[in-house]
Amino acid sequence: MSKLEDVVSLCKRRGFIFPGSEVYGGMAGTWDFGPLGVMLKRNMMNAWWGFWVDKRDDIYGVDAAIIMNPKTWEASGHVATFADPLVECKECHGRFRADKLVDGATESITTEEFLKAKVKCPTCGKFNWDEIKKFNMMFQTHVGPVMDDASIAYLRPETAQGIFTNYKSVIDTIYPNMPFGIAQQGKAFRNEISPRDFILRDRECSQMEIEYFVHPDSWEEEFEKMRKEQHEFLEEVIGLPAEMIHELDVPAEDRAHYSKRTIDMMFDYPNGEEELMGLAYRTDFDLSNIQNASGKSMEYRDKVTGETFIPHVIEPSIGVERLFLAILTAAYQEEDDRVVLKLPENLAPYKFCVSPLLKNKPELVQKAEEVYKALKEKYIFVTWDDSGNIGKRYKKQDEIGTPKCVVIDFDTLEDGTVTVRDRDTTEQKRVKIEEL
Amino acid sequence: MSKLEDVVSLCKRRGFIFPGSEVYGGMAGTWDFGPLGVMLKRNMMNAWWGFWVDKRDDIYGVDAAIIMNPKTWEASGHVATFADPLVECKECHGRFRADKLVDGATESITTEEFLKAKVKCPTCGKFNWDEIKKFNMMFQTHVGPVMDDASIAYLRPETAQGIFTNYKSVIDTIYPNMPFGIAQQGKAFRNEISPRDFILRDRECSQMEIEYFVHPDSWEEEFEKMRKEQHEFLEEVIGLPAEMIHELDVPAEDRAHYSKRTIDMMFDYPNGEEELMGLAYRTDFDLSNIQNASGKSMEYRDKVTGETFIPHVIEPSIGVERLFLAILTAAYQEEDDRVVLKLPENLAPYKFCVSPLLKNKPELVQKAEEVYKALKEKYIFVTWDDSGNIGKRYKKQDEIGTPKCVVIDFDTLEDGTVTVRDRDTTEQKRVKIEEL
Repeated sequence: MSKLEDVVSLCKRRGFIFPGSEVYGGMAGTWDFGPLGVMLKRNMMNAWWGFWVDKRDDIYGVDAAIIMNPKTWEASGHVATFADPLVECKECHGRFRADKLVDGATESITTEEFLKAKVKCPTCGKFNWDEIKKFNMMFQTHVGPVMDDASIAYLRPETAQGIFTNYKSVIDTIYPNMPFGIAQQGKAFRNEISPRDFILRDRECSQMEIEYFVHPDSWEEEFEKMRKEQHEFLEEVIGLPAEMIHELDVPAEDRAHYSKRTIDMMFDYPNGEEELMGLAYRTDFDLSNIQNASGKSMEYRDKVTGETFIPHVIEPSIGVERLFLAILTAAYQEEDDRVVLKLPENLAPYKFCVSPLLKNKPELVQKAEEVYKALKEKYIFVTWDDSGNIGKRYKKQDEIGTPKCVVIDFDTLEDGTVTVRDRDTTEQKRVKIEEL
Repeated sequence: MSKLEDVVSLCKRRGFIFPGSEVYGGMAGTWDFGPLGVMLKRNMMNAWWGFWVDKRDDIYGVDAAIIMNPKTWEASGHVATFADPLVECKECHGRFRADKLVDGATESITTEEFLKAKVKCPTCGKFNWDEIKKFNMMFQTHVGPVMDDASIAYLRPETAQGIFTNYKSVIDTIYPNMPFGIAQQGKAFRNEISPRDFILRDRECSQMEIEYFVHPDSWEEEFEKMRKEQHEFLEEVIGLPAEMIHELDVPAEDRAHYSKRTIDMMFDYPNGEEELMGLAYRTDFDLSNIQNASGKSMEYRDKVTGETFIPHVIEPSIGVERLFLAILTAAYQEEDDRVVLKLPENLAPYKFCVSPLLKNKPELVQKAEEVYKALKEKYIFVTWDDSGNIGKRYKKQDEIGTPKCVVIDFDTLEDGTVTVRDRDTTEQKRVKIEEL
């Protein structure tokens, strides 16, 4: 098995991530977080919110609806350009992403280039292709009781626009000083033609985005500051190893049309380097588009200087699933006879596991329950395990990343000490109960 | 203005809730949480998760995809029955919910009953109605590159099915003892024909649901336990006044088809009593449906007795927006010359506001900044306000529910004491900085 397959297998076996709708044979491109996955995901998302919003004075949260007025996606350019090159086989009517069938091709591949590559249909093996069409990746729906063009709406393909459309309401109610940011966590949807790579390219994902509004003259300075802070978040708060993160200064021809500078933070995923997050200078592209499309002023008036201007924007954008997989990739280790998730303590689902050495000795079980209750009261994220033998329990706790296993044995009853076994070193120490 | 209008106005004025996509003229039935609203909502949702999942030993979390395999909604009955009676005016083609046009009508209104009521079209005033049709309230979309019947999928109309479809994966990875529960927080979508009543009847909402799996023989006992715990949550954790909550033991004819007992917790909203949450005994309706539709066994095997059975289910279900509005309704008070949100301390967005008495005295500002930093370090949820005069600041902090305002004045520089002003009593006390 490849390392990615190992991680996928662990995720399923231990209740981190299940394939979406698995009981009904699945739903391509969707994944469900299980009990352990939800714990890790919550720790990670709360760490992000705590670092970027709660602890700072200059970033505010919003939580916008997923279904937005469709004008949003006209103004943002998504209706016109958020599309992949789709090619259909005229023989079997299979549909594919043209650029994924040709080695080294990009999303701008033309029909001519595609036909030159002489690729046969992966389904029927024939060579009889239709023209490449642009397939818009926004999921469409209809709002209200009439299903016509006027009622078309989209599931948001990014959370960013839910921030930009609320920018005006935020400045009119909070009156923030410049520079300031607006943050949002939430779902986004992309109708990928071929979802793949586990949770890296799914149809439904969660994003954590900040739009940081700055004076046009200071964007370079703010960009550099934000770049350093991204490293601080990824390496110190989330605990990703710095050597697994690589900055990619995206060249002009590969940048989104609205961006004058983009740095992608690439990560060493099991299958190779892939984007973990992006840091983009979006200029005033979005606010100007909204101003034009809505007829409402998006200008900010500086309280001190009185200057009015449309702020420019620095956007750090991170996918929850991408960060989740990065954390698992960094934590996953195979050692001799065990698999261990060396998760940072702040992210681990459980901080302690409490066990009686033997399940059939009521005095041990009772003492262990006392210790469990006391630890649970104090640390909350504490689990109990009295299944199988101690070896099996350690194996399980290693796989779910529990830093410490506390075992109550006969000595505990005599001298009030317990065995504390460390996940990373597998070392065992005797510790007084009060010192836990 | 009615009290509901007062609350809506406060929400908009202070950044709790904005109309969705307001900059583009809105999007009916959607609402966006602003900076203050996100803070209150997070506090509330985290209080729910802490009480029901983190602190307990028997309830686990999941976080399922919003787009599920469409078989889910066939098996659950939503494709067939999740519908409202829709009537169309043949003159102007306006479409309406038939039961909402006739006083005292229910969702089961027939065309005959409707015509008897002689209601004229609210849009054109004519009386020329088509037959009543059942309008399914699930939002439809298409998944993948082909838009045909085979690719139809729905936005989930409830989070519950994301729990039931994962029940098997959870018991196979976590091996929980009976009784146990699975909890989920997340978005749900209902294509209401006429969204109304602010956030009470919106098209996009968030739900917090638990499916609690019990032995069929013990459902009554577990139902009673859960009923008491719901009161504990609503009254002690969330701080809603017990006298504003009324239990409605739903009679058989009004219950959902799958429920053998339902208690709705009704709340005194500004416009009258409305459902805040539901507690339903769903029998084995859902698991049996899934077993039949998927061909996979949903039986649970008791570890001690070896008995196998399909568990029965107790479901407490609460809408985030409904709870949010209940909290605001209970907290909102008009007193003499002020509006005040008497939010419980654990829910209030900010716990303290720190101000220098005068903005143009650098020595006061500097001292106030010191106090702000120290409090922010300790309590995190602390805000700074140096705008306008002290009276205006108190007014603002009252409206956003900040329990304590700390003011630094000239005496502070002399004796190290500050004025602490209490939100609820408006009393001011001198307190030493170290005692904050």
